[in-house]
Amino acid sequence: MKKYYLLTPGPTPVPPRVAARTAEPIIHHRTKEFGELFDRVQEGMKYVMRTKNDVLMIMGSGTAAMEAAIANTCSSGDKVLVGSIGVFGDRFVDICEAYGLSPLVIREEWGTPLSPQKVEDALKKNPDIKIVTAQHTETSTTTVNDLKTIGAIVAKTHALFVVDSVSGLAAQELHMDDWKIDVLVSGSQKGLMCPPGLSMAAISEKGWKHVETAKLPRFYSDFRRIRKSIATHETPWTPAVSLFQGLDEAIKMIKEETLEGVWKRHQTLAKAVRAGFQAMGLKALSTYPCDVVTGAWLPDSVDGKAVIRKMLTDYGVSIAGGQKHLKGKIVRLAHMGYMDAFDMLIGLNAIENALSELGYKVPQAGQAVEAAKAALVS
Amino acid sequence: MKKYYLLTPGPTPVPPRVAARTAEPIIHHRTKEFGELFDRVQEGMKYVMRTKNDVLMIMGSGTAAMEAAIANTCSSGDKVLVGSIGVFGDRFVDICEAYGLSPLVIREEWGTPLSPQKVEDALKKNPDIKIVTAQHTETSTTTVNDLKTIGAIVAKTHALFVVDSVSGLAAQELHMDDWKIDVLVSGSQKGLMCPPGLSMAAISEKGWKHVETAKLPRFYSDFRRIRKSIATHETPWTPAVSLFQGLDEAIKMIKEETLEGVWKRHQTLAKAVRAGFQAMGLKALSTYPCDVVTGAWLPDSVDGKAVIRKMLTDYGVSIAGGQKHLKGKIVRLAHMGYMDAFDMLIGLNAIENALSELGYKVPQAGQAVEAAKAALVS
Repeated sequence: MKKYYLLTPGPTPVPPRVAARTAEPIIHHRTKEFGELFDRVQEGMKYVMRTKNDVLMIMGSGTAAMEAAIANTCSSGDKVLVGSIGVFGDRFVDICEAYGLSPLVIREEWGTPLSPQKVEDALKKNPDIKIVTAQHTETSTTTVNDLKTIGAIVAKTHALFVVDSVSGLAAQELHMDDWKIDVLVSGSQKGLMCPPGLSMAAISEKGWKHVETAKLPRFYSDFRRIRKSIATHETPWTPAVSLFQGLDEAIKMIKEETLEGVWKRHQTLAKAVRAGFQAMGLKALSTYPCDVVTGAWLPDSVDGKAVIRKMLTDYGVSIAGGQKHLKGKIVRLAHMGYMDAFDMLIGLNAIENALSELGYKVPQAGQAVEAAKAALVS
Repeated sequence: MKKYYLLTPGPTPVPPRVAARTAEPIIHHRTKEFGELFDRVQEGMKYVMRTKNDVLMIMGSGTAAMEAAIANTCSSGDKVLVGSIGVFGDRFVDICEAYGLSPLVIREEWGTPLSPQKVEDALKKNPDIKIVTAQHTETSTTTVNDLKTIGAIVAKTHALFVVDSVSGLAAQELHMDDWKIDVLVSGSQKGLMCPPGLSMAAISEKGWKHVETAKLPRFYSDFRRIRKSIATHETPWTPAVSLFQGLDEAIKMIKEETLEGVWKRHQTLAKAVRAGFQAMGLKALSTYPCDVVTGAWLPDSVDGKAVIRKMLTDYGVSIAGGQKHLKGKIVRLAHMGYMDAFDMLIGLNAIENALSELGYKVPQAGQAVEAAKAALVS
């Protein structure tokens, strides 16, 4: 027998009561019953996003919503400013290029957040920028951006502030309306504790003006059509009914804990994992770490891929390694969604075991777990 | 207590063993375990589609795959021939228009299949047509198209044959390769007996040549990228893991029954429902009825919307009414996916009850069920 522990930055474990709801009989999507479910999810997503805006439900994982955010707000030739601090920032560059747009890109060193000053300078130099994109939490570099400051800068211009909070929503503090975010996209399989396959986008009043005039082609994820159908408590196309059922339950759980409670839990777990890594002698990857996943550099002597493999094979613990040029050099332990303090102790123990077995001597055995436990109660 | 009977042409009921699989713990999509699941689904979809081509997995319901079929095979200015025999045929027109294409349209009267002769004539008159679209089964008019004949016609030209078998796959006979279909799209929530949210596209060798040169923008559902990732047993973006798990189980069920057995069951149920409607004195909607849903005209004296409402409210039976200009005039009883003979008797009984209570006197009470039962064993 081996238990399986999913401690990756998405997909994340689905709570049993959410899983049970996804397995309930399918209800038809053009019925009063589905309309009631739809309305509850709509209201719940507004609560989670801290917004008064409609929340559009999009079928597909987070990248589908990222693409929709570009296709629904831009026209050919529009100037886009992409703030990239990792893999998901670069994804906006790829999406823009697929649509024939040539984005301006601010790229920070991996592990460093986006500089608000650089965004401000770029907007001053290019007053014709139509949209500015940024990640909320960038999981590839385990870093959080200062969206509040950047949002205030973008709000002073005609540009839209497009934020990918696929990994940050319902985990790390975020206020769509107060932080002046114009397009906020997210996904079901991270802080929202659901299986992957559903994503969302909320659009500000300023954002809708762009959407109404944007000329890039789009159909399935046309924001105008999806918004129109909200009035009749439905989606324009057949929705992923089982994932709606799961999301309804997940939102109930978030409300029971309160959104502030959810943020606080992630903050505490992050603190504990950082303390644990430090006690193991591992250096933090990020200069401005997020609360949803923690990254640490591995000793040069250790092959990171072997660590990940050993953890999964010998201990049943699934965590993430590095992407792109960080491949094999880091570990990333997630504390995202349905995870608690004991999960972190499992993760730290498994990392410590794997490192020891691969020849790295931690400063003092067991110290990582003790440091994490101390941080949990501090 | 009221039991709920879902007898609509999608979404369809999910078998308990499929539902249970969708509720299993989520496995990470970049693991050997997911790779094995992915490969089984890949192989199973080839079996179900009767094809040697790769089957691309697309996140989103059927319309997402329909849009992807256009965006991945066309360039601006391309001539598209849409064969439309109902709502879903018209959807291809809307998709083309959203992408700035001006399709030629062959429209048949609702209830009539697409004329192969008209397709042949249009192709002769317009040798520059790039793709021809058609539905396999058009649920809005409960009609099946003669894809074999049309496929042979299109195969003689440079055009691609793009087929929407969202509602027909794994229910009504279809042979992608033998019938010379170049792009075949489908969805999870019909014959495949899964919750909605997953769709698929298979592309012929001739089709891939179009895909490689097509210039319309696409990213999330870029066929090139999705095909490339098949080699590494995964999808380019986070897949709907729980729906993959369900589809794996559904394919197992289809293999147990055999695909021919599945086709035969749908054929038998369709025959029974047609006999039942006839015995009730209701005229068939289609001149060339499909095996996945049966439509019948209601007597003028009866409000069709009231029938549907009464069936759901009083008997817990969900069937479909008419769409567009057929609203309120017809009933559509599905026999699609996880449905058997007793489901049909339930549907027919509930329709007969509702009609009687709304003032329509059936020729002889109980005769519809008897006629259906006779057809089942004939």
